[in-house]
Amino acid sequence: MSSIERIGVGPRMSEAVAYGNLVFLSGEVAEDTTQDAAGQTRQILASIDETLKKAGTDKTKILKANIWLADIKDFAAMNSVWDAWVPQGHTPARATVEAKLAAPQYLVEIMVVAAR
Amino acid sequence: MSSIERIGVGPRMSEAVAYGNLVFLSGEVAEDTTQDAAGQTRQILASIDETLKKAGTDKTKILKANIWLADIKDFAAMNSVWDAWVPQGHTPARATVEAKLAAPQYLVEIMVVAAR
Amino acid sequence: MSSIERIGVGPRMSEAVAYGNLVFLSGEVAEDTTQDAAGQTRQILASIDETLKKAGTDKTKILKANIWLADIKDFAAMNSVWDAWVPQGHTPARATVEAKLAAPQYLVEIMVVAAR
Repeated sequence: MSSIERIGVGPRMSEAVAYGNLVFLSGEVAEDTTQDAAGQTRQILASIDETLKKAGTDKTKILKANIWLADIKDFAAMNSVWDAWVPQGHTPARATVEAKLAAPQYLVEIMVVAAR
Repeated sequence: MSSIERIGVGPRMSEAVAYGNLVFLSGEVAEDTTQDAAGQTRQILASIDETLKKAGTDKTKILKANIWLADIKDFAAMNSVWDAWVPQGHTPARATVEAKLAAPQYLVEIMVVAAR
Repeated sequence: MSSIERIGVGPRMSEAVAYGNLVFLSGEVAEDTTQDAAGQTRQILASIDETLKKAGTDKTKILKANIWLADIKDFAAMNSVWDAWVPQGHTPARATVEAKLAAPQYLVEIMVVAAR
């Protein structure tokens, strides 16, 4: 049995939880919520890069991504940033749906599972 | 460490990503969106069968399913098709919620994780 | 290859599915839906404790949690119960979004993946 390694452990959730060769990240939202959906997506993906690095992996090893948009009309804006970021030949399984997020200023939330 | 095998690799996402004995499928939607929720569910489950086959597994090995309905009123219609398809004695963990999907003509989206 | 162990197998879904050292639980909702969001969260977390026990594990080994609220305004109410329940130092990756659930009386649904 593998041990569980928790990264960025908070009182409510951890930034990421690694178990064996799998890494589960929390849903990430933008810090600067004055930005639009494209800008928020850019921040989130940069933050995911950092979290994956802390867990000893990177975006070429993402297995699955769940994306929530506060307004599905931002699908194209989010994708324009995603498509430039996701490494070609290493694209994950993905699903994107609309959902109201924890606070109205959040336009995008992304949760990934990666290998390491 | 296992290697990552990507199936149906597109520029934005892959149809499925296998890692060791786990297979993560993308959220699947119907091709013929003139059909109602039951018809769309039927198409999606047939497509999931095909994707699982490409990954070397089948519906008796699904571990988890996430289902999104554009209108939760289609819960019974979706279930009528699901219940006939899911192999008895091998039912997965499952959660179903309402969410607007990528385009208004999509009534159902299903994302599964399977063993192989 | 590990074998799949299904717990609480129903005709539509299983309460939990264990595969190797991973356990996937179904989305859980409250039994007594006359209670408010805090009360429903309390019931759900007690039920998750029971299900994890049946699978040979416990809440210190939860890797990931997905939480859906019928009304995101219940975020604080749900969190007040969650924060008292989640074991400090062992918090999972988590994402919480709003979604209409299978029936209008359900205010909260929680789906977890754990190690064992």
